[in-house]
Amino acid sequence: MSRPAAIVLLSGGLDSATCLALALEDGFDPVALSFRYGQRHAVELDAAAAIAAAAGVEHVVVDIDLRAFGGSALTADIDVPKHDSVDAIDASTVPVTYVPARNTIFLSFALALAEVRGARDLYLGVNTLDYSGYPDCRPEFVDAFARLANLATRAGVAPADDEGPIVVHTPLIELTKGEIIRRGIELGVDHRLTTSCYDPLVVDGQPVACGRCDSCLLRRKGFAEVGRTDPIRYVDEQGVTP
Amino acid sequence: MSRPAAIVLLSGGLDSATCLALALEDGFDPVALSFRYGQRHAVELDAAAAIAAAAGVEHVVVDIDLRAFGGSALTADIDVPKHDSVDAIDASTVPVTYVPARNTIFLSFALALAEVRGARDLYLGVNTLDYSGYPDCRPEFVDAFARLANLATRAGVAPADDEGPIVVHTPLIELTKGEIIRRGIELGVDHRLTTSCYDPLVVDGQPVACGRCDSCLLRRKGFAEVGRTDPIRYVDEQGVTP
Repeated sequence: MSRPAAIVLLSGGLDSATCLALALEDGFDPVALSFRYGQRHAVELDAAAAIAAAAGVEHVVVDIDLRAFGGSALTADIDVPKHDSVDAIDASTVPVTYVPARNTIFLSFALALAEVRGARDLYLGVNTLDYSGYPDCRPEFVDAFARLANLATRAGVAPADDEGPIVVHTPLIELTKGEIIRRGIELGVDHRLTTSCYDPLVVDGQPVACGRCDSCLLRRKGFAEVGRTDPIRYVDEQGVTP
Repeated sequence: MSRPAAIVLLSGGLDSATCLALALEDGFDPVALSFRYGQRHAVELDAAAAIAAAAGVEHVVVDIDLRAFGGSALTADIDVPKHDSVDAIDASTVPVTYVPARNTIFLSFALALAEVRGARDLYLGVNTLDYSGYPDCRPEFVDAFARLANLATRAGVAPADDEGPIVVHTPLIELTKGEIIRRGIELGVDHRLTTSCYDPLVVDGQPVACGRCDSCLLRRKGFAEVGRTDPIRYVDEQGVTP
């Protein structure tokens, strides 16, 4: 029997790479979906392609220009905040790296692709423990999107008899970064292929992480938590001049 | 006092042109938002630009490639169905001109733009009486999106004291096509600038409507209902060879 299709949002970071591995473990035939949205860290798309290739799954990249809107440090000329410690991250406020309505837009495209491919399952690698305080990473947001998805599409008016509802899977939502890393190692995720930094240097076509943005700090905390060495390159550790 | 911003989805058709006029009448300072999404009737973007210019409002066009997904007669090599009469339209099934998750995607971008511009009001020209049976034109879809919008954004976590909720206005939702046309005439909408056809010929850079797709048939029914002559050109009436 052929495996059912699923759409996995793949940013190229360690969360979404783990999500992809979990979708495979759940028995799906995943299509990985990434976006060239004007992000300053567009090198993550190469990471996403490498992760999809390593997993042997189809990779779809959609071009959308969020830079036309601006409003975020990731898509406009606003500095990405840097900290010396993970404790400096205040998840009770929405940081300037928040991209307005990004996950709503990404999930909308995932829904469109799911409908075209006959998939009923979407995977999104959000988590609420070690995160930056983005409104569109919270469980209530995910639930509201799932509700919308089941009204927005053909299945909402005329579901086939054998069709279940559209489900938005968020298998990492209650895991710490350390637990996500541990789960990834169990599933064979190659963390060398992942990139998390919001503001990487690109040296010889490869990203070198800044080590001090929220995303780097959370990643490093996770590797410290599990007592593993993070296999990617950081500016401060490896003598690369920022 | 300056008028508050609002985002109006503007396709270039008569519904969205009327919506824009209503947003102005409601006292907003609208930004019109259109999409170059790979639609076969891309001439509607010129219509949208002309409508926005006539109304004196800013017009933002976002490029997104829904053709990469396909799955619709509007974005793939599937014929647009033609009928001899409006009675042949069966709104109880979803037609092949439905574009998977299109309104979800469009509203997501409208939400992003609203957040960047500090707008709390979105306008969408859907209606449920004279329509083609698209799942993402129904009131329950609009309500679910409004609920999502208020969880998805900065305002969902940290609303400012003077901020109301995000509202999705659908002022046409219970109007017939004839009532929409009458309302447009009252508001000074120039129907010559609007285009409704899914499959127009383009003659000297101007669209000439097929007259027989669902959208043309509903439009013609509306003009007949109000006893007005539709000022746009149709293939069958004006001696243009299809």
